[in-house]
Amino acid sequence: MVRPQLGHMDPDLMPMLEETSALLRRVFQTANELAFPISGTGTAGMEACLVNTLEPGDRIVVAVSGFFAQRIAEVAARAGADVEVVEAPWGQAVDPADLARTLGRRRAKVLAATHVETSTGVLQPVQEFAAIAQEHGALLLVDAVASLGGVDLPVDQWGIDICYSGSQKCLSAPPGMAPVTANDRVRRLPRAHPVRSYYLDLTLLWQYWGHPHAYHHTVPVAFVFAIHEALRLTVEEGLPARFARHALNASALGAGLEALGLRLFAPAPLRAPSVVTVEVPVGVDEARVRERLLTDHGIEIAGGLGPLRGRIWRVGLMGHSSQDRLVLLLLTALETALASEGFRFEPGAGMAAASRVLAASSAA
Amino acid sequence: MVRPQLGHMDPDLMPMLEETSALLRRVFQTANELAFPISGTGTAGMEACLVNTLEPGDRIVVAVSGFFAQRIAEVAARAGADVEVVEAPWGQAVDPADLARTLGRRRAKVLAATHVETSTGVLQPVQEFAAIAQEHGALLLVDAVASLGGVDLPVDQWGIDICYSGSQKCLSAPPGMAPVTANDRVRRLPRAHPVRSYYLDLTLLWQYWGHPHAYHHTVPVAFVFAIHEALRLTVEEGLPARFARHALNASALGAGLEALGLRLFAPAPLRAPSVVTVEVPVGVDEARVRERLLTDHGIEIAGGLGPLRGRIWRVGLMGHSSQDRLVLLLLTALETALASEGFRFEPGAGMAAASRVLAASSAA
Repeated sequence: MVRPQLGHMDPDLMPMLEETSALLRRVFQTANELAFPISGTGTAGMEACLVNTLEPGDRIVVAVSGFFAQRIAEVAARAGADVEVVEAPWGQAVDPADLARTLGRRRAKVLAATHVETSTGVLQPVQEFAAIAQEHGALLLVDAVASLGGVDLPVDQWGIDICYSGSQKCLSAPPGMAPVTANDRVRRLPRAHPVRSYYLDLTLLWQYWGHPHAYHHTVPVAFVFAIHEALRLTVEEGLPARFARHALNASALGAGLEALGLRLFAPAPLRAPSVVTVEVPVGVDEARVRERLLTDHGIEIAGGLGPLRGRIWRVGLMGHSSQDRLVLLLLTALETALASEGFRFEPGAGMAAASRVLAASSAA
Repeated sequence: MVRPQLGHMDPDLMPMLEETSALLRRVFQTANELAFPISGTGTAGMEACLVNTLEPGDRIVVAVSGFFAQRIAEVAARAGADVEVVEAPWGQAVDPADLARTLGRRRAKVLAATHVETSTGVLQPVQEFAAIAQEHGALLLVDAVASLGGVDLPVDQWGIDICYSGSQKCLSAPPGMAPVTANDRVRRLPRAHPVRSYYLDLTLLWQYWGHPHAYHHTVPVAFVFAIHEALRLTVEEGLPARFARHALNASALGAGLEALGLRLFAPAPLRAPSVVTVEVPVGVDEARVRERLLTDHGIEIAGGLGPLRGRIWRVGLMGHSSQDRLVLLLLTALETALASEGFRFEPGAGMAAASRVLAASSAA
């Protein structure tokens, strides 16, 4: 990002735009031509995918069991869509059978779901959702904000039609851009009206990122540099190695937290490799623990959103931050913070349990 | 921007958000509470101002004599507004009398105009537009992308209701954020429907930037650092000194270009202090000149947009780039480029004329 700025139409920038798209295709595991980062955050990516797919009155079914899926429903409603929500309790995945029933009762243009629901730490069965969308002739729209580059999501193989992410999660670039990809089913949708948003019109944006590199808006060049480098590092490490690293560190952290007597929030088969959620024990001040971690140890973890406010902590282990030494550091820091809250546990048990998981993996 | 990243909800970030708003109020010359940068480029700022002011069917009159005013009309139409365009030839300002006639014939909710129309280098009489908007009960929406911090635009004094800019123009931060401000008339507009865009909803965004600093999206923290520093430097220099610097350098460049026998495109009374436009002489390959400036001298100037493609050059003298030595450097480089195109002029005449303007000012 500290490279000298280039103009957004500078010929020297164009190869970097093309490389960024090519790298993104590899990370999205797609042959889609349209693949580039939107000049905005994950929420802008969400809105871009929705307004380019839906026209007013179009029906969308949203699988909701957390804060960010709710946001999908809200953004779609604001875009004038006819929104139906299929719910599961926060902390669960939405049941594919419920989605099939809803789509079977009345067709929808789009089925939308979060892959990793950041608000609950739940990994949803997107592959099953994809089969249901295909069976019922709906396009599948997936929120991969907290998974792209850290959790396996083979866009083409699973049949995901349109997908977005954020630059600052498992890709570990700074926040500010939102990678998107869309296949030709989405790109060839007939439209009665132009896309409601000019800034987020994927066709116009693709004319800048792809060919003929026509001016649309002044792309934040510093962020192009950043995401290009982040994608390069992602591909250099390799997706399988990256997915394994995320899975291992999340499982080591989970084991450590359980050994301290804490209860993980997401049920075992649905635990996301990128966000570990854990219940706040009775009698512990959750905000004070977070403040202590931040002030004394420089570690930022998140609290719960919406109905989970005050009830859980959320630990992001994404991209560069998914490291074994950071897992151990957090467990040590957390022991100190919990002890000062009067919470009782076996000292060192968390570290020991996490280390066992890490050691078992390196022995294997 | 190379400061260590802070989380978007980190308590340490909050004073910087508040300082950024306070600095922006000074630069917009406003007492409006709502003043912050949108997490997107100038086009996102434009779209945010339009969708937060207009509901589908609302009437807007747009003063159009260039590319960016046309874009306002397009974004408003996509937002479902009833758009009427009042035109003037590109290179002129829109006639206030035409706007008064149009608004008098049929009321409109909003009158919109560019302050400095970047595509033509014309400075429009926004103060006159404001009087007309007030007389006809319309809100005035102003595009200050190419003027904020470089050209005087007293938002409150002139009665501008809602205004946006871009980070990378006269403020000289990198591209990626769009400062906006809106007064209470705009904020208290009754709405039948929520703002169509969630990402660009000014009320939600202000709840993040202002009080209670509620989460809305992950603000690009690196850009907050950048725009905060850019605004600090702007206020440190002082707005009057800054406006004078922009005016002087543009007038020196204009004198230099005319002394080379070139014709300025914008008519004398309407010349913007931040963008100098000049006609491409017959027989000169405009793209080759730009390429030569970029390759041989590291100077990027822009070509014409839309109907002016191939007909004019546009020289941005904005913020940090509005410097006397850069004016002289460009004139020297341009002499070389024009000479190799076979264009005839008196060698050194451009430099001499520009220097005279600069010297007269420092003597005064």
